[in-house]
Amino acid sequence: MIDLATAAAAFAAPPATVLTGAPIALLDALRHRFGLRFKLGRSMREQHGCEASPSDTTAPDGVVFAHTTEEVAEIVRLCAMHRVAVTAFGVFSSLERHVLGHVGGISIDLSEMDEVMTINAQDLTATVQAGVTREQLNSEVKDTGLFFPIDPGSKASLGGMAATRAGGTSAVRYGTMRENVLALTVVTAEGRIIRTARRAKKSSAGYDLTRIFVGSEGTLGIITEVTVRLYPRPEAIATAVCTFSDVRSAVDTVIQTIQTGVPLARAEFMDALALRAVNLHTDTQFTERPTLFLEFHGTPAGVAEQAEIVRDIAREHGGDDYDWADQPEARTRLWSARHTAFAACERLRPGWRTFTTDACVPLSRLAQCIEETIEDTRRSSLLCPLFGHVGDGHLLCLIIADPDNPAEMAEAERLNQRMMSRALRMEGTCTAEHGIGAQKVVLLTEEFDANAVHLMRQLKRAWDPLNILNPGKVIAVPE
Amino acid sequence: MIDLATAAAAFAAPPATVLTGAPIALLDALRHRFGLRFKLGRSMREQHGCEASPSDTTAPDGVVFAHTTEEVAEIVRLCAMHRVAVTAFGVFSSLERHVLGHVGGISIDLSEMDEVMTINAQDLTATVQAGVTREQLNSEVKDTGLFFPIDPGSKASLGGMAATRAGGTSAVRYGTMRENVLALTVVTAEGRIIRTARRAKKSSAGYDLTRIFVGSEGTLGIITEVTVRLYPRPEAIATAVCTFSDVRSAVDTVIQTIQTGVPLARAEFMDALALRAVNLHTDTQFTERPTLFLEFHGTPAGVAEQAEIVRDIAREHGGDDYDWADQPEARTRLWSARHTAFAACERLRPGWRTFTTDACVPLSRLAQCIEETIEDTRRSSLLCPLFGHVGDGHLLCLIIADPDNPAEMAEAERLNQRMMSRALRMEGTCTAEHGIGAQKVVLLTEEFDANAVHLMRQLKRAWDPLNILNPGKVIAVPE
Repeated sequence: MIDLATAAAAFAAPPATVLTGAPIALLDALRHRFGLRFKLGRSMREQHGCEASPSDTTAPDGVVFAHTTEEVAEIVRLCAMHRVAVTAFGVFSSLERHVLGHVGGISIDLSEMDEVMTINAQDLTATVQAGVTREQLNSEVKDTGLFFPIDPGSKASLGGMAATRAGGTSAVRYGTMRENVLALTVVTAEGRIIRTARRAKKSSAGYDLTRIFVGSEGTLGIITEVTVRLYPRPEAIATAVCTFSDVRSAVDTVIQTIQTGVPLARAEFMDALALRAVNLHTDTQFTERPTLFLEFHGTPAGVAEQAEIVRDIAREHGGDDYDWADQPEARTRLWSARHTAFAACERLRPGWRTFTTDACVPLSRLAQCIEETIEDTRRSSLLCPLFGHVGDGHLLCLIIADPDNPAEMAEAERLNQRMMSRALRMEGTCTAEHGIGAQKVVLLTEEFDANAVHLMRQLKRAWDPLNILNPGKVIAVPE
Repeated sequence: MIDLATAAAAFAAPPATVLTGAPIALLDALRHRFGLRFKLGRSMREQHGCEASPSDTTAPDGVVFAHTTEEVAEIVRLCAMHRVAVTAFGVFSSLERHVLGHVGGISIDLSEMDEVMTINAQDLTATVQAGVTREQLNSEVKDTGLFFPIDPGSKASLGGMAATRAGGTSAVRYGTMRENVLALTVVTAEGRIIRTARRAKKSSAGYDLTRIFVGSEGTLGIITEVTVRLYPRPEAIATAVCTFSDVRSAVDTVIQTIQTGVPLARAEFMDALALRAVNLHTDTQFTERPTLFLEFHGTPAGVAEQAEIVRDIAREHGGDDYDWADQPEARTRLWSARHTAFAACERLRPGWRTFTTDACVPLSRLAQCIEETIEDTRRSSLLCPLFGHVGDGHLLCLIIADPDNPAEMAEAERLNQRMMSRALRMEGTCTAEHGIGAQKVVLLTEEFDANAVHLMRQLKRAWDPLNILNPGKVIAVPE
């Protein structure tokens, strides 16, 4: 076991560029310590150097399956001693080249850290190991009448969701991981173990370590345990669907609904092309117009009242065919277009690549942002069905391109870049919920002023002076 | 004007302890630059070295009334050049010795930075200068149908509230400043100006600078502008009051209410002694038993439904005299005991000092924490009426002691210390909403493990290597 003093001694030496390949001594030490849980096979390494989104694979030098926080700390101390990069790996759902091992190094696979450690039903909190998925947590808290609402739409792990500050369709009501992580256990670049906060719901004690690590993408520390907020499962759920003649009317309906104080639980937008994809591939006949899919949580009387208030607002904005339901089967039927949409869109061009974009603007700019984006994609030869978690000002395009056609791939990248620039021009962000990864490192420096980026670099250097934690992601150091 | 390069040159030199008195050259420069807005008079300086909570005054060497972010940056650059401490001062409402100038230095008074800069009603955001109070903001957004709910119970400025991560009675529904600050403008220790985020509601872009500064109490940067979330003013408000035979039944009523999904807007607890103070001093005859004061926000039908659900839950826990109202006058009457309570308690011993404690524990531990606290204070000779923002697990005692009786003052301190230790033992925090200030620097190191405190120190050193920003508050450096 490598102790803290030895690791600290390595830190005391002047910083150097991280090695691009792990030295034999490190590989030997890991093999000796972790046995069969240390993997060097090529396919295993390549699998840990790619992710859900299509991108080039750059493999780490080895993969360790850790089971405890202490083991993670030990691996990080070994890597620090040898100045080798170390990247946390969850469940293969990141989208922005978060886990690429482009300087080699060691990948720590946390998927076997899958224990729900404590459920405190009275406090509405649960503490889990980083590899626990949101589905697993929801299954284990089922008997308490509580649930964990954050739903990024993939079988993500809670450690990965915390590390990328993930959101999803229910963020309009429940917030993102930023609002729903109460405390973390983290292994620092020195291999020390810290607890970022206690379990009190509010605290004004000291710097907000929890929220520094939430969204830091493994570049400031490795999250090994997560304490999250739980919520009472709503007594009743209602859903509604409504079509509009134009984007602006749909968005204005959502704006007015929010300003009226209706606590929307979900507010999803699909454009005409997305609905066309659904009709083409699921034998349905939805109206191919801008459409809102809404969800309400509350008491039976409460959700009925909400659905009716929104019906009136939608009518004022020319909304047609407003339909709502509070029984499970009818709800499923109403939302079926939204549920099958991503798969249907991918089938528009079977075998082609689908790029998922991710941008968020202030609500008042959303209609214009969507209109300009649709206009831009119409001028392109590529198919780009458009979606939005519209209650948050969040829009995303699926850009579908032929991977064997360099011109199409370049066009996809241009469309994506223009979408990001558009969002930044409208006081928005280049990523609402996916993160920066290696993909948007340059965009980060466009989103923030130079002084803010300077502070981020100072923080990264202070906490990871050897630059061993997921190097090359979020922020480029040295300056 | 001092430029960035000159200030940066000062930074490049090796760190030194901050000066304990401002050199004449600095005072001259400030006088030259700010004229009558730079104050050296003794009473003005002393006023800027104390605060709302009784404590010893230690005055700064001078006070500057700043009007713009650029002016704040200029003052900080001057202070950095002379290695003199600089402390931001708001509106005299801090409670934990946040503004003591115990190493002298310059106090920057932000109270004249009181412009509401932009209100974006469609986005539910407003951007204000740091000296704007929450009352002023609410008055200026009134016509939009929106409001800013965070209510720390004093005429606090939004800059100060952001700097201390303030909460208040409505946090159970709307969160604290942690959840309600979207972006900040901050002057760093180098005198650079940064914007921490854009106005998108969600973002996964980079390190969460906003939440690093929220709660940092002027030790990492000086907050000069705040962008906050606004909320639709509820269509209807209802209030309810109910008494219980014991603390546990009152707390269990709140726990079950929250687990049922009723979105309590406020949930205040008062113990028998607090109600006795009200009866003694306001000519009322409230039942002197543990009492809950509740508030509901929603539609008229919604708040009626909520009030009735909670009535049934309270009954199950032996709640008596459950009374609720949704008309303004009746609501005011119901809550009058809570509204007059602090003043009434202070009149229990006119002229004596009232210490406000501040602790928060997980909800499941709250009843026990309150019971033990009442038991502890009963054994004391001091009067300690007890309150709680009970929906958050937050309790606070008013400890009333004779300032001329050293034995009583020592006993007050012992009671406060035991209350903090009790909260920490129960996985809670030593401060729910007031902050650490100079008062709880040692408690901070008890609340967090040594490795977490180490990270906080590294952050402070990285961003303020000369330790000029509000030194001695939050965290002691060097280690």
